[in-house]
Amino acid sequence: MKIAVDAMGGDYAPGVVVEGVANSLFEFPEFEIVLVGHSKKIAYYLEKYGIANHPRLQVVHADTVIEMSEPSTSSIRNKKDSSITVAAKLLKEKKVDAFVTPGHTGATLAATKVLVRTLPGVNRPALAANMPSQTSRFIVIDAGANTEVSALNLAEFAIMGSIYAEFMYGIENPPVGLLSVGGEDSKGNDLTKEAFSMLEHAPINFMGNIEANTVFEGVCKVLVADGFTGNVFLKCSEGLAKSVSCWLKAVFTKNPLRMAGGYLNKTAFRELKDYGNPELQGGAPLLGLNGVCIIGHGSSTPLAVKNAIKLAGECIKFGINQKITDKIRIFHETMEQLKNNNSETVEGSSQNIQG
Amino acid sequence: MKIAVDAMGGDYAPGVVVEGVANSLFEFPEFEIVLVGHSKKIAYYLEKYGIANHPRLQVVHADTVIEMSEPSTSSIRNKKDSSITVAAKLLKEKKVDAFVTPGHTGATLAATKVLVRTLPGVNRPALAANMPSQTSRFIVIDAGANTEVSALNLAEFAIMGSIYAEFMYGIENPPVGLLSVGGEDSKGNDLTKEAFSMLEHAPINFMGNIEANTVFEGVCKVLVADGFTGNVFLKCSEGLAKSVSCWLKAVFTKNPLRMAGGYLNKTAFRELKDYGNPELQGGAPLLGLNGVCIIGHGSSTPLAVKNAIKLAGECIKFGINQKITDKIRIFHETMEQLKNNNSETVEGSSQNIQG
Repeated sequence: MKIAVDAMGGDYAPGVVVEGVANSLFEFPEFEIVLVGHSKKIAYYLEKYGIANHPRLQVVHADTVIEMSEPSTSSIRNKKDSSITVAAKLLKEKKVDAFVTPGHTGATLAATKVLVRTLPGVNRPALAANMPSQTSRFIVIDAGANTEVSALNLAEFAIMGSIYAEFMYGIENPPVGLLSVGGEDSKGNDLTKEAFSMLEHAPINFMGNIEANTVFEGVCKVLVADGFTGNVFLKCSEGLAKSVSCWLKAVFTKNPLRMAGGYLNKTAFRELKDYGNPELQGGAPLLGLNGVCIIGHGSSTPLAVKNAIKLAGECIKFGINQKITDKIRIFHETMEQLKNNNSETVEGSSQNIQG
Repeated sequence: MKIAVDAMGGDYAPGVVVEGVANSLFEFPEFEIVLVGHSKKIAYYLEKYGIANHPRLQVVHADTVIEMSEPSTSSIRNKKDSSITVAAKLLKEKKVDAFVTPGHTGATLAATKVLVRTLPGVNRPALAANMPSQTSRFIVIDAGANTEVSALNLAEFAIMGSIYAEFMYGIENPPVGLLSVGGEDSKGNDLTKEAFSMLEHAPINFMGNIEANTVFEGVCKVLVADGFTGNVFLKCSEGLAKSVSCWLKAVFTKNPLRMAGGYLNKTAFRELKDYGNPELQGGAPLLGLNGVCIIGHGSSTPLAVKNAIKLAGECIKFGINQKITDKIRIFHETMEQLKNNNSETVEGSSQNIQG
C-alpha cells in the first residue's frame, strides 16, 4: 500500500509531518510512504527522526508550498509544482493509492477535482467529518467541500456517507438523516425538500429529516447537508466546545473549594477533551474521488498525521471506493427507472386522453 | 403598556403561563396584561395564583389551541379562533402593544405575517435569538423564521439585529458579522456573496464574514444568517451543550474521588448551566413586525414567561420598531442612490460610445 503524504501541509510543516510519517513507518509495516515536499527542507527532519534511508520511504520533490492563507483555485493554477499538486498528480497516475495532507482543504479539493477526478457516477466529492454524539459518534457529510449543491448531490453524499459510517463504526445500513429545521417530512428549505424524495429511493437506511440538536442524541449515524450548512454545523460545535471549556474554567476557579474539587477531577477533564479530539481522528476523507484522499486539521500533531495515514490505509483495505461506485450505480439505475416509469405513466394518460 | 399573552401556548399551558403572568403583574406595575385563551380552562389558575380580579388583567376568550405538533399555515387557516390568531388580531388592531407566546413558532409567524404585517420597508420578519459567547453574548438573526431568503432580506436582518443588539447589550454600533464558511471576503455561497456587498452599504458596523467557531470568541455581536442556517446554528449549540453535560456527568462519576470533586463543584455546575439558560432570556423577538412579538421556548417555566413579558415591555419602551423603520429607510435610500448612480454611469458611458 503506497501513501503519498504532503510534507509541507499544516501549520507546523514539515517537522510535525515527518515525525508523524516516521511513527507510522515504524508502526505499520504494510505501508510505503511517498513524502512530497521540498527535499532540502525535509532532509534535516528525515535525519532527526531516523528515516533518512528507510526502505519504505521515498521522497518526491515539490518546489513550492500553498500557504494556508492563499486562495484555493488561483494558487493551484499558479503553483503547478506545489506539494499538493505534485501529490495529487501521483494519485491521478496511480503511482500511489492514497494522498494525505494536513494542509489547505480548499486547494486540495481544487487540485484533486481537476487531476484525480470523481468516481464513475459521482458528480461531486464531499468531505466526511467524524463527530461525537452523546452515546457514540456520527458522520457529517458534506463538512465543507461544496457551498452550492443540488438535491442529486445531497443524495450522492448520503450514499457515500452511509458507506463511510459502515466502515467507521462497523454498522450495516447505518441510519442516515437529512439535516433540516424540523423532524417532520415537510420541514426544510427548497433544496432539502427536493433531496428528501430522492433519499427515499436511495440504497440507504434513510430515517428522514433530523434537527441539529437531535443528531447529538446518537441515533443518526450519518448527517447529510450541503457543504455550507455542514461546515457551519461542524464549526459551531467546535466554537461552542471551546466556549464550554472557557466557562468550566471560570466556574471551577472561582474559590479554593471549587479549585480543590477541580484538582480531584484533573484526569476527568482530560477525558472530556478526548471526546472531540481531532488528533484521534487524524483527518476527514474527501469521498467520491477516484482515489483515497484524507485531509487533516491544519494544526495536526505527529499523532494526528499518523492517524490520518492509518485512516487512509484502512479506507484502501476496506475497498471504500469500489463500494461507493457500486451503490451509486444502483441509485442512478433506480432514479432512471423511476423517470422511465413516470414518463410511461404520462404517455399512458395522454393516450387515454387522446383515446 | 398593554401586552397580550397566549395562555394556551407551550408544553405546560395554561398553568405555567398564568403563574408567569401573575408574577409579572406583581413585579411590573406599569404592565397591563391581556390573557388570551380558553376562559374556562384559565379560570382555575387565575384563582390559584390570586389574579382572578386583578385590575390590570383582562381575559379574552379563544376557543381553540394550535397544538405544538400541528402544521403552521394550515392550522392558522383552519383555526381562526385559536389563542394565537386572536392575540395576533389584538396586536393588528392596536388593542395591545405587544404579543407574547411560549407556543408554536411557525403558527405565530404565519398568523402575525398575515394579520400584523411588517414594518414599512421590511420585507420579512426574522427571529432574533440571544446566545452566549466566551466573553459575553450575541444575537443570531434569523434564528428560524425564513428558510428561503434573498440577499436583500439578509441585509434587512442585519439592520434589525444591529438595533436589537444595541438595545440588549447597550453598545452603539455593535459589530455585525455575516455567517460564512471562512473569514475572508471572498468566502461563502452565492447568497452570502451577494449579501456581502449590500451589507457594506448598510447603516451598520459591518465586520465582514465570520465563521461559526469564531463568533463564540465574542467580538461579533450580531450574527446574520438565513433562517435555515441560523436555526441549524442555534440547535447545534443546544445539542452540543447537552452532549457536554452528558459527557461531564460520565467523566465525573467514574470513581469516588472524582465524585467527591464533583460534589465540591455542585454550585459551579449550576452556574455553568446558567450560561445557556433560556429561562433567563424569556424569548426571542420576531423583529420587523408592525408590533412587538416575543416567542418563548415551548418548555417555558413561569420565570421564562415573566422574562418574556418583561422583554416585550422593554422593547416597547426602547421604541425598537421606530428605530428599525428609520434605519431601514436610510438603507433603502442608499440602495436606491447606488442604483441611480450606476445607471447614470452606464448611460454616461453609452453616450460616450455613441459620441
